[in-house]
Amino acid sequence: MANEFDLIHRYFSPLAGPEGLGLEDDAACVTVEPECDLVVTKDMLVEGVHFFGNDPASSIAHKSLAANLSDLAAKGAKPKHYFLGLSLPGTIDDAWLQVFSDALAKLQRRTGIRLAGGDTTRSLSGVVVSITAMGTVPHGKMVRRSGAQVDDLLFVTGTLGDAALGLKCLEGHIEPTDSLIERYRYPEARSELGITLAPHIHACADVSDGLLADLGHIAKASGVGADVALRDIPLSPMVRQLITQNPEYEDSIYAGGDDYELVFTAAASKRAKLEEICADAGVRLAVVGRITENTGIRLIDQNGKLVHTERTGFQHFET
Amino acid sequence: MANEFDLIHRYFSPLAGPEGLGLEDDAACVTVEPECDLVVTKDMLVEGVHFFGNDPASSIAHKSLAANLSDLAAKGAKPKHYFLGLSLPGTIDDAWLQVFSDALAKLQRRTGIRLAGGDTTRSLSGVVVSITAMGTVPHGKMVRRSGAQVDDLLFVTGTLGDAALGLKCLEGHIEPTDSLIERYRYPEARSELGITLAPHIHACADVSDGLLADLGHIAKASGVGADVALRDIPLSPMVRQLITQNPEYEDSIYAGGDDYELVFTAAASKRAKLEEICADAGVRLAVVGRITENTGIRLIDQNGKLVHTERTGFQHFET
Repeated sequence: MANEFDLIHRYFSPLAGPEGLGLEDDAACVTVEPECDLVVTKDMLVEGVHFFGNDPASSIAHKSLAANLSDLAAKGAKPKHYFLGLSLPGTIDDAWLQVFSDALAKLQRRTGIRLAGGDTTRSLSGVVVSITAMGTVPHGKMVRRSGAQVDDLLFVTGTLGDAALGLKCLEGHIEPTDSLIERYRYPEARSELGITLAPHIHACADVSDGLLADLGHIAKASGVGADVALRDIPLSPMVRQLITQNPEYEDSIYAGGDDYELVFTAAASKRAKLEEICADAGVRLAVVGRITENTGIRLIDQNGKLVHTERTGFQHFET
Repeated sequence: MANEFDLIHRYFSPLAGPEGLGLEDDAACVTVEPECDLVVTKDMLVEGVHFFGNDPASSIAHKSLAANLSDLAAKGAKPKHYFLGLSLPGTIDDAWLQVFSDALAKLQRRTGIRLAGGDTTRSLSGVVVSITAMGTVPHGKMVRRSGAQVDDLLFVTGTLGDAALGLKCLEGHIEPTDSLIERYRYPEARSELGITLAPHIHACADVSDGLLADLGHIAKASGVGADVALRDIPLSPMVRQLITQNPEYEDSIYAGGDDYELVFTAAASKRAKLEEICADAGVRLAVVGRITENTGIRLIDQNGKLVHTERTGFQHFET
């Protein structure tokens, strides 16, 4: 492998915008447009925890950046800059780095985000990718987790469970299905949709840990609760078929992570507007429940009964 | 160990400023003062590469944040916010986290920087600390690596070699000396001095990889070279004594990293002003050489002879 400076010059300088100063300085210089706030998020992905060591380099790169783009999308922020921390074991070669940086370049072109800096170090074990991403919102307009109001409707974009079942394919639990594996490996952040929805909604999170967990964060930060109707959770035909055949995997749709869809709350009066925005974007929009005054998240089955569930989503350090 | 959210709540929320939203959101919302640019830097520290697994948690925390503060100091930036990525193996307990977060709190109080967000994940091997730090400079005034001009004098703050010899103490190569180990474990970034010097200097870097390497970055970015006088490199009495006794360690003073002093260039006419600033700050200032039109860094001994050196500083992935 090339030395640290050659490596940066060869693979990462071509990804840098002007604020990155060609990645030849110790720091980037970011000028924020007037009347804007900077939204900053950080997601760290670790080999063996968030991805497999033998996953394609393009998937590792894509997921790492997409996870951060998804956080920006949930805030209604326009993607601007990112900083890439990369810790690499000696087994990584130039071919891997080429595929990795090409995947970043591809996602940059699609979303407008640009590399602005970072740090590259050796790793004594697996690959670690630590990205800090920045976007902008009009001053004071960041969509927060804490804005949910009692009686808000609860919306979900796209479909849930695909990525979690894609992971089960890769783990050998179910028959490999390309569309599910693709969804797990190359999730799409709802970048443009998040910006368009932002002025009309009260609170938002991306579904990265699992619907109930991410909704739980919104509820806790807002001091409210939520009722979710199990049968209204939007599913792809493939996921619907798989959980009919394997009911033990049903919790993938409310406790499986990595879908990177948006879950958000808004006044019922906004429903038609929100449906119009999503229809224009070609994205499915489902109403899955309602914000309640009672705290806690209740998952209700089609008979109106409470679903007792142990799993709500992914947490690190569970005891 | 507590679960991820309890852990954040217990140890890191108390470190967060208002822009961190209590660390209860997916993102931070940073408002940059008018007429200011945001300087952003990222340093990633990996167990077994940048620190030992049995180093005190306070040292790991301190070094990780200080390395980033030092990059901001070299840019003349006022420390503002940082984002903490932390990957932790299962062996880490609450006592470790308490000491780690206390050390961050202490350095925050001294420098004014505040925690604004981050990500905490499991690690299957050692500890990884990935910090992205932000500071502000007046618009257009960031000190760059690329500003060095021919005939500029070359300045170094403090003393060099202490940290590299501190590391040699810990590795068992030389008799343990507390002051050197302390310097290796708890380096001080030149935060306030960097801001005060900024309007008077042309180019600056912090000495993290080693004097010749960091000066090499300045020279390359500026399209110039530099002559450095070996005998003018500022040494502490302890380092002077040690390299007299062990001449094989002399390269620690120009190729040893981790001192986190500043190396900068300025017009000769500014020398008195710069000396006054450093005297006021109680920091030693040395002139160690001059910027040249010929590219390349030349290290000159006391007989005027070129010192041939293999080592210039730390690089990852050297082949």
